[in-house]
Amino acid sequence: MVDESDLRRGNQTANALFGNAASVLVGDFLYSRSFQMMVSVGDMRVMQILADATNVIAEGEVLQLLNCHDADIDEENYLRVIRYKTAKLFEAAARLGAVIGGGTPEQEEAMAQYGMHLGTAFQLIDDVLDYSGNSNETGKNVGDDLAEGKPTLPLLYAMKNGAPEQAAAIREAIEFAGLAQLETVLKAIRETGALQYTREQARREIAIAKAALDALPDTKHKSALIQLADFAVDRNF
Amino acid sequence: MVDESDLRRGNQTANALFGNAASVLVGDFLYSRSFQMMVSVGDMRVMQILADATNVIAEGEVLQLLNCHDADIDEENYLRVIRYKTAKLFEAAARLGAVIGGGTPEQEEAMAQYGMHLGTAFQLIDDVLDYSGNSNETGKNVGDDLAEGKPTLPLLYAMKNGAPEQAAAIREAIEFAGLAQLETVLKAIRETGALQYTREQARREIAIAKAALDALPDTKHKSALIQLADFAVDRNF
Repeated sequence: MVDESDLRRGNQTANALFGNAASVLVGDFLYSRSFQMMVSVGDMRVMQILADATNVIAEGEVLQLLNCHDADIDEENYLRVIRYKTAKLFEAAARLGAVIGGGTPEQEEAMAQYGMHLGTAFQLIDDVLDYSGNSNETGKNVGDDLAEGKPTLPLLYAMKNGAPEQAAAIREAIEFAGLAQLETVLKAIRETGALQYTREQARREIAIAKAALDALPDTKHKSALIQLADFAVDRNF
Repeated sequence: MVDESDLRRGNQTANALFGNAASVLVGDFLYSRSFQMMVSVGDMRVMQILADATNVIAEGEVLQLLNCHDADIDEENYLRVIRYKTAKLFEAAARLGAVIGGGTPEQEEAMAQYGMHLGTAFQLIDDVLDYSGNSNETGKNVGDDLAEGKPTLPLLYAMKNGAPEQAAAIREAIEFAGLAQLETVLKAIRETGALQYTREQARREIAIAKAALDALPDTKHKSALIQLADFAVDRNF
């Protein structure tokens, strides 16, 4: 409903199938059910972490909306949006593992750092796959972000480092959110190495995430977190 | 957005002014902010009451949606919807007053009963005003519920007690949600005394609500609750 789209990952959306009313109201019901599940844990600190995360995520979604069609967004602003809308959820999830598991304050902070940098890397790779993924594997079409006028890092980098006519084409694509410029934009992304640059930023985030785990004892759980971090940056879907 | 309407109480809706995306996302932000405010009270029982109430309210909204265009709803089913979608919120609010104020378990139950019956009466009167209110006072147009095919008590009563051709017209209006039958429906409501009947049900609820307050000491706060109950059933807006 947010993007008034009838299709998602090749399937009809709930609002296309059941209408706006059922989609919103059943969504509210699911939200309230998850609220009950949070309460059932019976820990006020858990509630606080989830409330604060939910608030930041909602703020991130609004920020992203404000950034749409704005070709003058800089990398710092882009990173803020993905820290808010995506990384905060990973951070809260990882932090809660430490809280519920009875970790020390240092371990809790380490887990929060791990989650935050993992989530940032995850979103960076998501933005890479939007321009390079195989739609059979990702379930998304190349250029979906462009069609919404989202100024993601691959675009920002290609605009900054491409030829003037390439930069102009990318700017036009962001501002008018059309796919008319898609071939030109893809060529600029290839020629500037924008996806390699974005993957490199993701690898830096993953390195920080893994370093944060030094605060935890060596267990099979820690190994799993390390594997998850490596997977997040190497994935193709 | 739920009813895909451009106007509410004579003003343009948020989705008409700002689009679906901003309306949903800013709504999510407000919801998350209220979640933070609940957490700030620091009382797990408050969270539980609010989580359970939110869940029932969401369920009530879905139930109401399922009942739309169904002329075979009975009075019991109608009452369940308003207990869920409206009265539960009043019940939770009144109960929380007792919880936060440190009332006894008996006082808490009494307040919950007060809220539940007050909320039921409030919604019954709302449904009366939909067919009789002055749109300058209520901010709604006569027949808004009919236009959505909502089988409210005034309609159910008039259908049951009106002449066969009146019952048929009301059934058609509910099932096809048109205002073509509005004049016939309003005449049936007048002739059967459906609004008086509905107001009478509201008065019964208010009497139960006020009786529940016997469990509380006589204070100016109790007087205010009694005045509120009387106002809810006598209001014209």
